Amino acid sequence: MQAMDIEKVNSMDFGEFVDVFGNVIERCPLIAAAVWSQRPFSNLEDLEKHIFAFIDALPQSGQEGILRCHPDLAGRELQRGTLTAESQREQRSAGLTNLGADERLRLAELNAQYRARFGFPFVLAARLSDPAAVRRELARRLRCPPAQELRTALGEVKKIGHLRLADLLGAHSARL
Amino acid sequence: MQAMDIEKVNSMDFGEFVDVFGNVIERCPLIAAAVWSQRPFSNLEDLEKHIFAFIDALPQSGQEGILRCHPDLAGRELQRGTLTAESQREQRSAGLTNLGADERLRLAELNAQYRARFGFPFVLAARLSDPAAVRRELARRLRCPPAQELRTALGEVKKIGHLRLADLLGAHSARL
Repeated sequence: MQAMDIEKVNSMDFGEFVDVFGNVIERCPLIAAAVWSQRPFSNLEDLEKHIFAFIDALPQSGQEGILRCHPDLAGRELQRGTLTAESQREQRSAGLTNLGADERLRLAELNAQYRARFGFPFVLAARLSDPAAVRRELARRLRCPPAQELRTALGEVKKIGHLRLADLLGAHSARL
Repeated sequence: MQAMDIEKVNSMDFGEFVDVFGNVIERCPLIAAAVWSQRPFSNLEDLEKHIFAFIDALPQSGQEGILRCHPDLAGRELQRGTLTAESQREQRSAGLTNLGADERLRLAELNAQYRARFGFPFVLAARLSDPAAVRRELARRLRCPPAQELRTALGEVKKIGHLRLADLLGAHSARL
């Protein structure tokens, strides 16, 4: 995917737009497909603003639904090779693709505890991290109150989306 | 996929649930993932009611987004073999998978006119139809007012979802 400017983005029909931006929010092409209604966008930040506003306006079940479309970190989908290309890249850059069996098992246990407690998977902007930091953060967030954790997790969804958008539009990612 | 009863459905974790019901609404696993929050379901109709209520509660852009996640009938994705399994089956049962080149071209032109007019693709519960009826219905709906057409199209999304749920839960589909 080559970097593109906002004029190119605004000229896309919805098919192209969903092809390009459909996974900015992991496995939720519905969101890009919805936001196409709000074009033209003045710039990357404007497009991002509409995506985030759509997420914020969803009922809580919808926000939890977004989280549930995310894979576990270092989980079954990584093992099976069924991650999206974006997730694969992010988990690789966090060093999660070549963990030892012990580390993988420890993370799998924490992920399972987290899913059982909150009803959605642990979501983290992984490429900003490394395996030890992922494990620490997972252990820490496992003890947070559910309402706070939902907000934290949606914040991570937005960080991931911001970085994926920056990749697509070739912008430098100054803000996290 | 074997038929299953509602107790089995209610016992699923969100990963299984999204694996099974994630495409009841075409390419919108977010919706099944959201509706999992409302379990347990008393029966198939109850699950369906929650899915439809989620769709109805979306802003108009979100409803248009759902439509934009649908493929054209007898379109490029069928040619390329990139349809979902469910869409492939439905388009085949409507006789759309072995059209002559002329018929395909005529449908492609109508689909393009429809997309240009409404900003979403023509959606029809195709397995209840045949090529001549699809073409007639497409030509007819192309002339409808946009607000009415959005309602009609969402009604087709629900018919498709109803039939897919009935397939999954092994129920007879008495209601359309």
